[in-house]
Amino acid sequence: MDNKKEIFAGIIVIGNEILSGRTLDTNTSTLSIWLNSLGIKVQEARTIPDIEEIIIQNVNELRKKYNYIFTTGGIGPTHDDITASSISKAFGIEYGPHQEAMSILEKYYKPGEFNKGRQKMAHMPIEASLILNPTSGAPGFYVENVFCLPGVPSILKSMLGGITNKLVGGDPILSKTINLRTVESEIAKSLKNVQDMNKNVEIGSYPFFKAGKLGVSIVLRATNQKNIDKCNLEIMSFIEEKKIEIVEKN
Amino acid sequence: MDNKKEIFAGIIVIGNEILSGRTLDTNTSTLSIWLNSLGIKVQEARTIPDIEEIIIQNVNELRKKYNYIFTTGGIGPTHDDITASSISKAFGIEYGPHQEAMSILEKYYKPGEFNKGRQKMAHMPIEASLILNPTSGAPGFYVENVFCLPGVPSILKSMLGGITNKLVGGDPILSKTINLRTVESEIAKSLKNVQDMNKNVEIGSYPFFKAGKLGVSIVLRATNQKNIDKCNLEIMSFIEEKKIEIVEKN
Repeated sequence: MDNKKEIFAGIIVIGNEILSGRTLDTNTSTLSIWLNSLGIKVQEARTIPDIEEIIIQNVNELRKKYNYIFTTGGIGPTHDDITASSISKAFGIEYGPHQEAMSILEKYYKPGEFNKGRQKMAHMPIEASLILNPTSGAPGFYVENVFCLPGVPSILKSMLGGITNKLVGGDPILSKTINLRTVESEIAKSLKNVQDMNKNVEIGSYPFFKAGKLGVSIVLRATNQKNIDKCNLEIMSFIEEKKIEIVEKN
Repeated sequence: MDNKKEIFAGIIVIGNEILSGRTLDTNTSTLSIWLNSLGIKVQEARTIPDIEEIIIQNVNELRKKYNYIFTTGGIGPTHDDITASSISKAFGIEYGPHQEAMSILEKYYKPGEFNKGRQKMAHMPIEASLILNPTSGAPGFYVENVFCLPGVPSILKSMLGGITNKLVGGDPILSKTINLRTVESEIAKSLKNVQDMNKNVEIGSYPFFKAGKLGVSIVLRATNQKNIDKCNLEIMSFIEEKKIEIVEKN
Protein backbone atom coordinates (compact mmCIF):
# COMPACT_ATOMS: atom_id res chain seq x y z
CA MET A 1 0.00 0.00 0.00
CA ASP A 2 1.26 3.49 -0.89
CA ASN A 3 4.45 1.87 -2.18
CA LYS A 4 5.67 1.60 1.38
CA LYS A 5 7.34 -1.48 2.72
CA GLU A 6 4.95 -4.13 3.93
CA ILE A 7 6.05 -6.58 6.59
CA PHE A 8 4.29 -9.96 6.68
CA ALA A 9 3.96 -12.61 9.34
CA GLY A 10 2.71 -16.18 9.40
CA ILE A 11 1.28 -17.99 12.42
CA ILE A 12 1.62 -21.73 13.05
CA VAL A 13 -0.70 -23.07 15.75
CA ILE A 14 0.63 -26.45 16.86
CA GLY A 15 -1.79 -28.74 18.64
CA ASN A 16 -4.11 -31.71 18.17
CA GLU A 17 -6.49 -30.14 20.70
CA ILE A 18 -7.29 -27.31 18.26
CA LEU A 19 -7.80 -29.66 15.29
CA SER A 20 -10.10 -31.92 17.29
CA GLY A 21 -12.26 -28.91 18.14
CA ARG A 22 -11.71 -29.53 21.86
CA THR A 23 -10.00 -26.16 22.32
CA LEU A 24 -10.95 -22.94 20.55
CA ASP A 25 -7.84 -21.12 19.31
CA THR A 26 -7.76 -17.51 20.47
CA ASN A 27 -4.00 -17.04 20.07
CA THR A 28 -4.24 -16.28 16.34
CA SER A 29 -6.53 -13.36 17.08
CA THR A 30 -4.32 -12.12 19.96
CA LEU A 31 -1.19 -12.30 17.84
CA SER A 32 -2.87 -10.67 14.83
CA ILE A 33 -4.12 -7.67 16.76
CA TRP A 34 -0.73 -7.20 18.41
CA LEU A 35 1.20 -7.59 15.14
CA ASN A 36 -1.13 -5.18 13.34
CA SER A 37 -0.39 -2.57 15.98
CA LEU A 38 3.31 -2.96 15.12
CA GLY A 39 2.67 -2.57 11.39
CA ILE A 40 3.05 -6.28 10.66
CA LYS A 41 0.34 -7.92 8.58
CA VAL A 42 -0.56 -11.54 9.24
CA GLN A 43 -0.85 -13.13 5.81
CA GLU A 44 -1.55 -16.72 6.83
CA ALA A 45 -2.32 -18.82 9.89
CA ARG A 46 -2.01 -22.59 9.90
CA THR A 47 -3.12 -25.06 12.54
CA ILE A 48 -1.20 -28.33 12.39
CA PRO A 49 -1.00 -31.51 14.50
CA ASP A 50 1.74 -32.50 16.99
CA ILE A 51 3.68 -34.46 14.37
CA GLU A 52 7.38 -33.76 13.98
CA GLU A 53 7.73 -33.98 10.20
CA ILE A 54 4.67 -31.79 9.67
CA ILE A 55 6.01 -29.13 12.07
CA ILE A 56 9.42 -29.14 10.37
CA GLN A 57 7.91 -28.92 6.90
CA ASN A 58 5.56 -26.05 7.74
CA VAL A 59 8.19 -24.05 9.64
CA ASN A 60 10.69 -24.42 6.82
CA GLU A 61 8.11 -23.50 4.19
CA LEU A 62 6.72 -20.44 5.95
CA ARG A 63 9.92 -18.97 7.42
CA LYS A 64 11.16 -18.37 3.87
CA LYS A 65 7.83 -16.92 2.78
CA TYR A 66 7.21 -14.29 5.48
CA ASN A 67 9.31 -11.83 7.50
CA TYR A 68 8.29 -13.37 10.81
CA ILE A 69 6.80 -16.67 11.96
CA PHE A 70 5.11 -17.21 15.29
CA THR A 71 4.41 -20.69 16.60
CA THR A 72 2.11 -21.36 19.55
CA GLY A 73 1.91 -24.51 21.62
CA GLY A 74 3.98 -27.61 22.26
CA ILE A 75 6.67 -26.20 24.54
CA GLY A 76 5.56 -27.77 27.83
CA PRO A 77 7.05 -30.72 29.74
CA THR A 78 4.99 -33.67 28.40
CA HIS A 79 5.64 -36.19 25.60
CA ASP A 80 3.31 -34.36 23.20
CA ASP A 81 5.32 -31.12 23.49
CA ILE A 82 7.65 -31.47 20.52
CA THR A 83 7.91 -27.93 19.17
CA ALA A 84 11.40 -27.20 20.55
CA SER A 85 12.97 -30.40 19.22
CA SER A 86 11.20 -29.97 15.87
CA ILE A 87 12.46 -26.38 15.50
CA SER A 88 15.99 -27.62 16.26
CA LYS A 89 15.68 -30.09 13.40
CA ALA A 90 14.10 -27.52 11.08
CA PHE A 91 17.16 -25.29 11.53
CA GLY A 92 19.71 -28.11 11.93
CA ILE A 93 20.75 -26.80 15.35
CA GLU A 94 21.57 -29.08 18.29
CA TYR A 95 18.68 -29.69 20.71
CA GLY A 96 19.69 -29.80 24.36
CA PRO A 97 19.70 -28.01 27.72
CA HIS A 98 19.84 -24.25 27.09
CA GLN A 99 22.20 -22.74 29.67
CA GLU A 100 20.32 -19.51 30.27
CA ALA A 101 16.94 -21.25 30.37
CA MET A 102 18.25 -23.86 32.82
CA SER A 103 19.54 -21.09 35.06
CA ILE A 104 16.20 -19.21 34.94
CA LEU A 105 14.18 -22.28 35.87
CA GLU A 106 16.62 -23.39 38.57
CA LYS A 107 16.00 -20.07 40.30
CA TYR A 108 12.25 -20.15 39.60
CA TYR A 109 11.57 -23.47 41.35
CA LYS A 110 12.17 -24.30 45.00
CA PRO A 111 15.24 -26.47 45.71
CA GLY A 112 14.49 -30.06 44.72
CA GLU A 113 11.49 -29.10 42.58
CA PHE A 114 13.40 -28.62 39.33
CA ASN A 115 12.67 -32.17 38.25
CA LYS A 116 13.21 -33.96 34.90
CA GLY A 117 9.85 -32.84 33.48
CA ARG A 118 10.62 -29.22 34.26
CA GLN A 119 14.15 -29.54 32.91
CA LYS A 120 12.61 -30.54 29.56
CA MET A 121 11.19 -27.00 29.35
CA ALA A 122 14.78 -25.69 29.25
CA HIS A 123 15.66 -28.03 26.37
CA MET A 124 15.55 -26.28 23.01
CA PRO A 125 17.84 -25.30 20.13
CA ILE A 126 20.95 -24.51 22.20
CA GLU A 127 21.68 -21.36 20.17
CA ALA A 128 18.15 -19.96 20.55
CA SER A 129 17.49 -16.55 22.13
CA LEU A 130 14.98 -16.61 24.98
CA ILE A 131 11.56 -14.98 25.28
CA LEU A 132 10.99 -14.33 28.97
CA ASN A 133 7.84 -15.60 30.68
CA PRO A 134 6.67 -13.37 33.54
CA THR A 135 3.72 -15.68 34.31
CA SER A 136 5.07 -19.17 34.82
CA GLY A 137 8.83 -19.12 34.41
CA ALA A 138 9.41 -21.41 31.42
CA PRO A 139 10.69 -19.21 28.59
CA GLY A 140 9.81 -19.28 24.92
CA PHE A 141 12.57 -18.81 22.38
CA TYR A 142 13.39 -17.61 18.91
CA VAL A 143 15.76 -18.72 16.19
CA GLU A 144 16.30 -16.24 13.36
CA ASN A 145 12.76 -15.11 12.36
CA VAL A 146 10.84 -17.93 14.08
CA PHE A 147 9.35 -17.05 17.47
CA CYS A 148 8.06 -19.92 19.61
CA LEU A 149 5.41 -19.16 22.22
CA PRO A 150 3.33 -21.37 24.53
CA GLY A 151 -0.25 -22.39 23.83
CA VAL A 152 -1.88 -21.21 27.07
CA PRO A 153 -3.44 -17.86 26.04
CA SER A 154 -2.81 -15.94 29.28
CA ILE A 155 0.85 -16.96 29.34
CA LEU A 156 1.32 -16.17 25.65
CA LYS A 157 -0.15 -12.69 26.14
CA SER A 158 2.16 -11.95 29.04
CA MET A 159 5.22 -12.74 26.89
CA LEU A 160 4.52 -10.47 23.91
CA GLY A 161 5.81 -7.31 25.58
CA GLY A 162 9.25 -8.93 25.80
CA ILE A 163 9.65 -9.33 22.04
CA THR A 164 8.11 -6.11 20.71
CA ASN A 165 11.56 -4.53 20.40
CA LYS A 166 12.90 -7.53 18.44
CA LEU A 167 10.47 -6.92 15.57
CA VAL A 168 10.81 -4.35 12.82
CA GLY A 169 7.35 -3.33 11.63
CA GLY A 170 6.14 -1.42 8.60
CA ASP A 171 3.75 1.48 8.75
CA PRO A 172 1.03 0.79 11.32
CA ILE A 173 -2.15 -0.55 9.75
CA LEU A 174 -4.99 1.87 10.49
CA SER A 175 -8.64 0.96 10.34
CA LYS A 176 -12.10 2.45 10.53
CA THR A 177 -15.36 0.56 11.01
CA ILE A 178 -18.77 1.84 9.92
CA ASN A 179 -21.80 -0.11 11.17
CA LEU A 180 -24.95 0.19 9.11
CA ARG A 181 -28.56 -0.90 9.48
CA THR A 182 -28.80 -2.53 6.06
CA VAL A 183 -28.08 -5.77 4.25
CA GLU A 184 -25.03 -6.40 2.08
CA SER A 185 -26.93 -6.74 -1.19
CA GLU A 186 -28.28 -3.18 -0.73
CA ILE A 187 -24.81 -1.61 -0.74
CA ALA A 188 -22.79 -4.16 -2.75
CA LYS A 189 -22.66 -2.16 -5.99
CA SER A 190 -21.87 1.22 -4.43
CA LEU A 191 -19.24 -0.33 -2.18
CA LYS A 192 -17.58 -2.03 -5.14
CA ASN A 193 -17.38 1.35 -6.90
CA VAL A 194 -15.64 2.86 -3.87
CA GLN A 195 -13.23 -0.11 -3.71
CA ASP A 196 -12.47 0.16 -7.44
CA MET A 197 -11.59 3.85 -7.05
CA ASN A 198 -9.53 3.31 -3.88
CA LYS A 199 -7.20 0.40 -4.52
CA ASN A 200 -4.91 1.45 -1.66
CA VAL A 201 -7.62 0.83 0.94
CA GLU A 202 -8.76 -2.69 1.81
CA ILE A 203 -12.55 -2.57 2.18
CA GLY A 204 -14.26 -5.47 3.95
CA SER A 205 -17.99 -6.00 4.36
CA TYR A 206 -19.31 -8.20 7.18
CA PRO A 207 -22.95 -8.92 7.98
CA PHE A 208 -23.92 -9.04 11.65
CA PHE A 209 -26.96 -9.83 13.79
CA LYS A 210 -27.44 -7.73 16.90
CA ALA A 211 -30.51 -7.65 19.13
CA GLY A 212 -32.47 -9.49 16.48
CA LYS A 213 -31.64 -7.01 13.74
CA LEU A 214 -29.46 -7.37 10.67
CA GLY A 215 -26.61 -5.02 9.95
CA VAL A 216 -23.39 -4.69 8.02
CA SER A 217 -19.98 -3.63 9.28
CA ILE A 218 -17.78 -1.98 6.69
CA VAL A 219 -14.13 -2.08 7.64
CA LEU A 220 -11.56 0.18 5.95
CA ARG A 221 -7.88 -0.71 6.38
CA ALA A 222 -4.85 1.15 5.08
CA THR A 223 -1.53 2.55 6.25
CA ASN A 224 -2.50 6.09 5.27
CA GLN A 225 -5.18 7.97 7.22
CA LYS A 226 -5.95 10.31 4.31
CA ASN A 227 -6.87 7.36 2.10
CA ILE A 228 -9.19 6.00 4.78
CA ASP A 229 -10.81 9.42 5.20
CA LYS A 230 -11.38 9.76 1.44
CA CYS A 231 -12.99 6.32 1.31
CA ASN A 232 -15.08 7.11 4.35
CA LEU A 233 -16.44 10.29 2.71
CA GLU A 234 -17.40 8.40 -0.44
CA ILE A 235 -19.19 5.76 1.61
CA MET A 236 -21.00 8.43 3.67
CA SER A 237 -22.17 9.98 0.43
CA PHE A 238 -23.92 6.83 -0.89
CA ILE A 239 -25.26 5.98 2.58
CA GLU A 240 -26.95 9.37 2.77
CA GLU A 241 -28.34 8.97 -0.73
CA LYS A 242 -29.77 5.55 0.13
CA LYS A 243 -31.05 6.83 3.51
CA ILE A 244 -29.23 4.06 5.41
CA GLU A 245 -28.93 4.47 9.17
CA ILE A 246 -25.51 4.36 10.90
CA VAL A 247 -25.67 2.37 14.14
CA GLU A 248 -23.52 1.69 17.18
CA LYS A 249 -22.56 -1.96 17.28
CA ASN A 250 -20.92 -2.37 20.67
CA MET B 1 -4.82 -46.54 14.05
CA ASP B 2 -5.67 -50.24 14.26
CA ASN B 3 -4.86 -50.54 10.55
CA LYS B 4 -8.29 -49.16 9.73
CA LYS B 5 -8.86 -46.60 7.05
CA GLU B 6 -8.39 -43.03 8.16
CA ILE B 7 -10.22 -40.22 6.41
CA PHE B 8 -8.67 -36.75 6.55
CA ALA B 9 -10.04 -33.26 6.00
CA GLY B 10 -8.50 -29.83 5.61
CA ILE B 11 -10.19 -26.52 6.43
CA ILE B 12 -9.55 -23.25 4.60
CA VAL B 13 -10.87 -20.18 6.39
CA ILE B 14 -11.06 -17.33 3.87
CA GLY B 15 -11.21 -13.82 5.26
CA ASN B 16 -9.10 -10.75 6.02
CA GLU B 17 -11.28 -10.15 9.09
CA ILE B 18 -9.85 -13.26 10.76
CA LEU B 19 -6.23 -12.41 9.88
CA SER B 20 -6.62 -8.86 11.20
CA GLY B 21 -7.82 -10.27 14.51
CA ARG B 22 -11.11 -8.37 14.18
CA THR B 23 -13.16 -11.57 14.13
CA LEU B 24 -12.43 -14.69 16.17
CA ASP B 25 -12.78 -17.80 14.03
CA THR B 26 -15.09 -20.35 15.63
CA ASN B 27 -15.95 -22.21 12.40
CA THR B 28 -12.79 -24.36 12.55
CA SER B 29 -13.84 -25.69 15.93
CA THR B 30 -17.46 -26.24 14.79
CA LEU B 31 -16.36 -28.10 11.67
CA SER B 32 -13.76 -30.16 13.55
CA ILE B 33 -16.20 -31.40 16.17
CA TRP B 34 -18.77 -32.26 13.50
CA LEU B 35 -16.23 -34.01 11.25
CA ASN B 36 -14.81 -35.99 14.17
CA SER B 37 -18.30 -37.28 14.91
CA LEU B 38 -18.40 -38.60 11.33
CA GLY B 39 -15.02 -40.33 11.67
CA ILE B 40 -13.17 -37.67 9.66
CA LYS B 41 -10.00 -36.25 11.18
CA VAL B 42 -9.07 -32.63 10.51
CA GLN B 43 -5.37 -32.67 9.71
CA GLU B 44 -4.84 -29.00 8.92
CA ALA B 45 -6.64 -25.67 9.03
CA ARG B 46 -5.42 -22.62 7.15
CA THR B 47 -6.63 -19.04 7.37
CA ILE B 48 -5.89 -17.05 4.23
CA PRO B 49 -6.74 -13.57 2.91
CA ASP B 50 -9.38 -12.62 0.29
CA ILE B 51 -6.87 -12.78 -2.56
CA GLU B 52 -7.78 -14.82 -5.63
CA GLU B 53 -4.41 -16.38 -6.45
CA ILE B 54 -3.87 -17.36 -2.81
CA ILE B 55 -7.30 -19.02 -2.61
CA ILE B 56 -6.70 -20.92 -5.86
CA GLN B 57 -3.24 -22.06 -4.80
CA ASN B 58 -4.38 -23.29 -1.36
CA VAL B 59 -7.48 -25.05 -2.67
CA ASN B 60 -5.51 -26.82 -5.38
CA GLU B 61 -2.77 -27.84 -2.95
CA LEU B 62 -5.04 -29.14 -0.20
CA ARG B 63 -7.73 -30.84 -2.29
CA LYS B 64 -5.09 -33.29 -3.52
CA LYS B 65 -3.71 -33.83 -0.03
CA TYR B 66 -6.88 -34.66 1.94
CA ASN B 67 -10.11 -36.56 1.33
CA TYR B 68 -12.28 -33.50 1.94
CA ILE B 69 -11.74 -29.74 2.00
CA PHE B 70 -14.09 -27.26 3.64
CA THR B 71 -13.85 -23.55 2.92
CA THR B 72 -15.63 -20.94 5.02
CA GLY B 73 -16.35 -17.35 4.07
CA GLY B 74 -16.41 -15.21 0.95
CA ILE B 75 -19.69 -16.35 -0.62
CA GLY B 76 -21.79 -13.26 0.06
CA PRO B 77 -22.89 -10.47 -2.31
CA THR B 78 -20.10 -7.89 -1.86
CA HIS B 79 -16.90 -7.21 -3.83
CA ASP B 80 -14.72 -8.96 -1.22
CA ASP B 81 -16.67 -12.22 -1.63
CA ILE B 82 -14.51 -14.01 -4.18
CA THR B 83 -14.61 -17.63 -3.05
CA ALA B 84 -17.06 -18.85 -5.71
CA SER B 85 -15.17 -17.30 -8.63
CA SER B 86 -11.84 -18.48 -7.22
CA ILE B 87 -13.10 -22.06 -6.86
CA SER B 88 -14.32 -21.93 -10.48
CA LYS B 89 -10.80 -20.98 -11.56
CA ALA B 90 -9.19 -23.59 -9.30
CA PHE B 91 -11.21 -26.30 -11.06
CA GLY B 92 -11.27 -24.67 -14.51
CA ILE B 93 -15.09 -24.63 -14.49
CA GLU B 94 -17.16 -21.77 -15.90
CA TYR B 95 -18.32 -19.20 -13.29
CA GLY B 96 -21.84 -17.92 -13.87
CA PRO B 97 -25.47 -17.96 -12.74
CA HIS B 98 -26.25 -21.42 -11.32
CA GLN B 99 -29.74 -22.38 -12.51
CA GLU B 100 -30.89 -24.18 -9.38
CA ALA B 101 -29.43 -21.50 -7.08
CA MET B 102 -31.08 -18.73 -9.12
CA SER B 103 -34.39 -20.52 -8.84
CA ILE B 104 -34.06 -21.00 -5.06
CA LEU B 105 -33.25 -17.34 -4.46
CA GLU B 106 -35.96 -16.09 -6.82
CA LYS B 107 -38.50 -17.92 -4.66
CA TYR B 108 -36.81 -16.86 -1.40
CA TYR B 109 -37.05 -13.11 -2.01
CA LYS B 110 -40.18 -11.05 -2.49
CA PRO B 111 -40.92 -10.00 -6.08
CA GLY B 112 -38.60 -7.17 -7.07
CA GLU B 113 -36.17 -7.85 -4.20
CA PHE B 114 -33.96 -10.30 -6.05
CA ASN B 115 -31.54 -7.53 -7.03
CA LYS B 116 -28.07 -7.67 -8.66
CA GLY B 117 -26.28 -8.05 -5.34
CA ARG B 118 -28.44 -11.00 -4.39
CA GLN B 119 -28.06 -12.54 -7.83
CA LYS B 120 -24.30 -12.61 -7.24
CA MET B 121 -24.96 -15.16 -4.49
CA ALA B 122 -26.30 -17.53 -7.17
CA HIS B 123 -23.14 -17.12 -9.26
CA MET B 124 -20.71 -19.99 -8.78
CA PRO B 125 -19.10 -22.83 -10.72
CA ILE B 126 -22.07 -23.68 -12.96
CA GLU B 127 -21.57 -27.43 -12.49
CA ALA B 128 -21.42 -27.23 -8.68
CA SER B 129 -23.82 -29.16 -6.45
CA LEU B 130 -25.68 -27.03 -3.93
CA ILE B 131 -25.59 -27.06 -0.12
CA LEU B 132 -28.97 -25.83 1.06
CA ASN B 133 -29.20 -22.96 3.52
CA PRO B 134 -32.22 -23.18 5.86
CA THR B 135 -31.30 -19.92 7.60
CA SER B 136 -30.90 -17.24 4.96
CA GLY B 137 -31.58 -18.76 1.54
CA ALA B 138 -28.28 -18.34 -0.27
CA PRO B 139 -26.85 -21.84 -0.79
CA GLY B 140 -23.29 -23.04 -0.43
CA PHE B 141 -21.92 -25.47 -2.97
CA TYR B 142 -19.44 -28.24 -3.58
CA VAL B 143 -17.29 -29.31 -6.47
CA GLU B 144 -15.73 -32.78 -6.19
CA ASN B 145 -14.27 -32.92 -2.65
CA VAL B 146 -14.31 -29.16 -1.95
CA PHE B 147 -17.26 -27.93 0.14
CA CYS B 148 -17.82 -24.16 0.29
CA LEU B 149 -19.70 -22.76 3.27
CA PRO B 150 -20.45 -19.23 4.46
CA GLY B 151 -18.47 -17.42 7.16
CA VAL B 152 -21.35 -16.46 9.48
CA PRO B 153 -21.17 -19.16 12.20
CA SER B 154 -24.91 -19.59 12.81
CA ILE B 155 -25.62 -19.98 9.08
CA LEU B 156 -22.71 -22.38 8.61
CA LYS B 157 -23.96 -24.55 11.47
CA SER B 158 -27.44 -24.75 10.02
CA MET B 159 -26.09 -26.06 6.71
CA LEU B 160 -24.00 -28.99 7.99
CA GLY B 161 -26.95 -31.37 8.35
CA GLY B 162 -27.53 -31.10 4.60
CA ILE B 163 -24.13 -32.53 3.66
CA THR B 164 -23.63 -35.25 6.27
CA ASN B 165 -24.85 -37.89 3.82
CA LYS B 166 -22.40 -36.68 1.13
CA LEU B 167 -19.38 -37.59 3.25
CA VAL B 168 -17.89 -41.02 3.75
CA GLY B 169 -16.25 -41.21 7.15
CA GLY B 170 -13.88 -43.67 8.75
CA ASP B 171 -14.36 -45.20 12.17
CA PRO B 172 -15.66 -42.58 14.61
CA ILE B 173 -12.90 -41.06 16.73
CA LEU B 174 -13.63 -41.78 20.39
CA SER B 175 -12.18 -39.82 23.26
CA LYS B 176 -11.91 -39.79 27.02
CA THR B 177 -10.79 -36.88 29.19
CA ILE B 178 -9.31 -37.25 32.68
CA ASN B 179 -8.91 -34.04 34.71
CA LEU B 180 -6.29 -34.08 37.43
CA ARG B 181 -5.28 -31.77 40.25
CA THR B 182 -1.59 -31.78 39.40
CA VAL B 183 0.95 -30.07 37.17
CA GLU B 184 2.28 -31.53 33.93
CA SER B 185 5.86 -31.99 35.12
CA GLU B 186 4.59 -34.31 37.90
CA ILE B 187 3.12 -36.82 35.46
CA ALA B 188 5.23 -36.25 32.34
CA LYS B 189 7.42 -39.35 32.71
CA SER B 190 4.62 -41.79 33.61
CA LEU B 191 2.42 -40.44 30.85
CA LYS B 192 5.20 -40.86 28.30
CA ASN B 193 5.57 -44.50 29.38
CA VAL B 194 1.85 -45.08 28.80
CA GLN B 195 2.05 -43.37 25.39
CA ASP B 196 5.10 -45.46 24.40
CA MET B 197 3.24 -48.67 25.24
CA ASN B 198 -0.01 -47.58 23.51
CA LYS B 199 0.94 -46.23 20.09
CA ASN B 200 -2.63 -46.68 18.82
CA VAL B 201 -4.00 -44.10 21.25
CA GLU B 202 -3.23 -40.40 20.86
CA ILE B 203 -2.57 -39.02 24.36
CA GLY B 204 -2.68 -35.25 24.83
CA SER B 205 -1.83 -33.34 28.01
CA TYR B 206 -3.25 -29.83 28.55
CA PRO B 207 -2.71 -27.63 31.60
CA PHE B 208 -5.71 -25.64 32.84
CA PHE B 209 -6.52 -23.00 35.46
CA LYS B 210 -9.87 -23.27 37.14
CA ALA B 211 -11.07 -21.34 40.17
CA GLY B 212 -7.52 -20.24 40.89
CA LYS B 213 -6.14 -23.77 40.90
CA LEU B 214 -3.86 -25.53 38.43
CA GLY B 215 -4.81 -28.79 36.80
CA VAL B 216 -4.07 -31.00 33.82
CA SER B 217 -6.52 -32.53 31.35
CA ILE B 218 -5.37 -35.78 29.80
CA VAL B 219 -7.20 -36.55 26.57
CA LEU B 220 -7.17 -40.05 25.07
CA ARG B 221 -8.27 -40.39 21.44
CA ALA B 222 -8.59 -43.55 19.35
CA THR B 223 -11.04 -45.36 17.11
CA ASN B 224 -11.11 -48.42 19.39
CA GLN B 225 -12.77 -48.21 22.81
CA LYS B 226 -10.75 -51.14 24.20
CA ASN B 227 -7.50 -49.34 23.50
CA ILE B 228 -8.78 -46.24 25.29
CA ASP B 229 -9.90 -48.36 28.27
CA LYS B 230 -6.49 -50.05 28.51
CA CYS B 231 -4.73 -46.68 28.46
CA ASN B 232 -7.15 -45.31 31.03
CA LEU B 233 -6.40 -48.19 33.41
CA GLU B 234 -2.66 -47.64 33.11
CA ILE B 235 -3.08 -43.92 33.82
CA MET B 236 -5.36 -44.65 36.81
CA SER B 237 -2.66 -46.92 38.15
CA PHE B 238 0.09 -44.27 38.23
CA ILE B 239 -2.35 -41.61 39.45
CA GLU B 240 -3.22 -43.77 42.45
CA GLU B 241 0.44 -44.46 43.14
CA LYS B 242 1.23 -40.74 43.05
CA LYS B 243 -1.89 -39.92 45.13
CA ILE B 244 -3.13 -37.44 42.52
CA GLU B 245 -6.73 -36.26 42.85
CA ILE B 246 -9.18 -36.61 39.93
CA VAL B 247 -11.38 -33.51 39.58
CA GLU B 248 -14.47 -32.40 37.71
CA LYS B 249 -13.57 -29.63 35.31
CA ASN B 250 -16.93 -28.45 34.04
